[in-house]
Amino acid sequence: MKNLLVAQSGGPTAVINASLAGVIQVAREKTKVLGAIHGIEGVINEQFYDLTDEFNDPYQMEALRHTPASFLGTCRHKLKEEEIERVFEVFKKHNIGYFIYIGGNDSMDTVDRLSKYAEKTKSDVKIIGVPKTIDNDLAMTDHTPGYGSAAKYIATSVREVVLDSSVYNKPTLTVIEVMGRNAGWLTAAAALARTEKEPAPHFIYLPEVPFDVERFIKNVKKILKYDKNIIVVLSEGVRTADGKLICELEGASKYTDAFGHTQLGGAAASIVNIVKSRDIDIKARPIELSLLQRSAAHIASKRDRDEAELVGRKGAEAVLAGKTGIMLCFKRVKQDYEIEVVEHKVADIANAERKVPLEWIKENGYDIKQELIDYMRPLIEGQVTALWENGLPVYAERPSEVEAAVEIA
Amino acid sequence: MKNLLVAQSGGPTAVINASLAGVIQVAREKTKVLGAIHGIEGVINEQFYDLTDEFNDPYQMEALRHTPASFLGTCRHKLKEEEIERVFEVFKKHNIGYFIYIGGNDSMDTVDRLSKYAEKTKSDVKIIGVPKTIDNDLAMTDHTPGYGSAAKYIATSVREVVLDSSVYNKPTLTVIEVMGRNAGWLTAAAALARTEKEPAPHFIYLPEVPFDVERFIKNVKKILKYDKNIIVVLSEGVRTADGKLICELEGASKYTDAFGHTQLGGAAASIVNIVKSRDIDIKARPIELSLLQRSAAHIASKRDRDEAELVGRKGAEAVLAGKTGIMLCFKRVKQDYEIEVVEHKVADIANAERKVPLEWIKENGYDIKQELIDYMRPLIEGQVTALWENGLPVYAERPSEVEAAVEIA
Repeated sequence: MKNLLVAQSGGPTAVINASLAGVIQVAREKTKVLGAIHGIEGVINEQFYDLTDEFNDPYQMEALRHTPASFLGTCRHKLKEEEIERVFEVFKKHNIGYFIYIGGNDSMDTVDRLSKYAEKTKSDVKIIGVPKTIDNDLAMTDHTPGYGSAAKYIATSVREVVLDSSVYNKPTLTVIEVMGRNAGWLTAAAALARTEKEPAPHFIYLPEVPFDVERFIKNVKKILKYDKNIIVVLSEGVRTADGKLICELEGASKYTDAFGHTQLGGAAASIVNIVKSRDIDIKARPIELSLLQRSAAHIASKRDRDEAELVGRKGAEAVLAGKTGIMLCFKRVKQDYEIEVVEHKVADIANAERKVPLEWIKENGYDIKQELIDYMRPLIEGQVTALWENGLPVYAERPSEVEAAVEIA
Repeated sequence: MKNLLVAQSGGPTAVINASLAGVIQVAREKTKVLGAIHGIEGVINEQFYDLTDEFNDPYQMEALRHTPASFLGTCRHKLKEEEIERVFEVFKKHNIGYFIYIGGNDSMDTVDRLSKYAEKTKSDVKIIGVPKTIDNDLAMTDHTPGYGSAAKYIATSVREVVLDSSVYNKPTLTVIEVMGRNAGWLTAAAALARTEKEPAPHFIYLPEVPFDVERFIKNVKKILKYDKNIIVVLSEGVRTADGKLICELEGASKYTDAFGHTQLGGAAASIVNIVKSRDIDIKARPIELSLLQRSAAHIASKRDRDEAELVGRKGAEAVLAGKTGIMLCFKRVKQDYEIEVVEHKVADIANAERKVPLEWIKENGYDIKQELIDYMRPLIEGQVTALWENGLPVYAERPSEVEAAVEIA
């Protein structure tokens, strides 16, 4: 039987390695499992790692399931036409009959083009995609593995920041910046932090809706009359009606680097600076959740982790059964909560981007509707029981790339 | 029996309410327990909350134990001479015989002055301090409640960032900024993130040692020859030999606000900007752990939480037994690990600041010694089993101050 090759691509998540674990668990029962290092670049460069026996130890496998950030390394590589032929040469040279690419919409473009090339050239290599992205912006699937864990981290952190920001007896404005250039799924998760008694965050700005500075300032002043600690959560990609990022606005934080070039600050820092430039008596501060929000495996959603592993297992089963040119998707069959794993043509997913539907965003432009809360809530359910040693989570350690290359060569 | 009044002061921690829970558990068996809102300011303004029956429900008490950020609110208030008399008037008016102040070194100054005033005026009000600070900078105690949990959050987050920062096949410099203006205890905790195979973080800069930009740049270039992903962790308070903060250096990130004033950026952003101004081919980015590091109760250290509660209980026992002018301290009787709770005169602690001993810092100036690792490791031990609902931690919600004021008045 031919070898199975797996690779990871695009930005990492807290559960991307649970999918890898699922692939290995199923595939190693039938064949040799290789991992390409740094995604498709590792295929082109023939940098592989033999995963067949690496995780025979159940403790190692458990550590891998809980490890954040692409264990095999990743890349952002738009495949050039001339590289496609090279990929198939490498497949042939290393006796690879099955290729699984764990990634987001750009990665699905790679899966789509490789599987079409296989069809055209009558190659029998089977190629499929396993979804992964904290952004939750893939088409045809109810949600993406990685989203639930990032959402859980964001909601938890916002809940903790809300408590912390109100301890002093003075007005504060805390602006929390969340990832998401075009889709607001992650930022929306901040709404889960609210409780019956606690209305914060007061403002949730998604990139799907234009941001209006003057209305924002007016609303801040209004809320300050009855609540002294205001929490704003916004997507890094929020723009005004004329397409400007927050950091490009008048009063935003621009700074000058050592070469005298003007550089733009983050969205949260910019909002803070704009508020400071107005006549509002308030202590304002920005918090960027930065890459912590995609790597905080210690507070991953159990459901997300389990689903990530499931979709890895189903992916291995599908490709070994001869499926090609598809991506595994979740179909929600019960709102709260049951899913089925289904298959869709990867061509319908590649390069598409699923944004938050406008009907799930409130008319005021700074909040979301109950439908979106109901959609998100089941995805953050359950706590992982990670491995701990010396008070810290145990994570699988990535193989040194040099060693790995030697091993295969 | 007279009433017991408890208040919280200074910056919050992830376990400060475990101390409050400990105080309530012990004190309500003997007398009425009031909480002053926003520390000593709440005493002066007679803003109290009756805590005696509030946490009779074991679920509520459990939630309080796990809740980050001062439940009673806090303040940074340097007591004026004329306010001291007022405090004692309020004590008298509300039949308060016992006062427990949970706080750091500034708060211990309040405890010291109030207890001295009581002695001078022959008041029989007993006044003691219960330690609290993530900074771990209190004198006379082995460590402070709050430190272990912040250290655990920092070490965990650094471990996760290390994994995330090395996924792409290109050189990166990630600079993580940690709280600590004068003492480097929190920053030192980043060293706990290392493993046998993983040397990152490569640089750990504490404020106790002067920072040398040119040496730093030289060392970055050196390490880049054999490791492509460099992690720097530094205290916000790091300074050069001539006393300048990083953000005041040539090439650091200064930005201009809407009034044309130059504003200083954070230490991490400044280092990143300095690196960008040099001829180094590397993607550099700053991460500020911000107030997440003091409020992340979801990953509190079980040992820290248990000790915070213990010192709250011991504090209530001590003050009710007639002790005054003391703070409860930890004495480590076995390195790994046993402590005793002991008492020290608060006068020896007030306004003092305990820094990291220079003999625990390596001669190279950017790393710490094994002795400090051995000191820190037991403090982050154990995971809390917090309460969870709908996938998120359950925290006790602070009473509305207006309601509280009405309740007592």
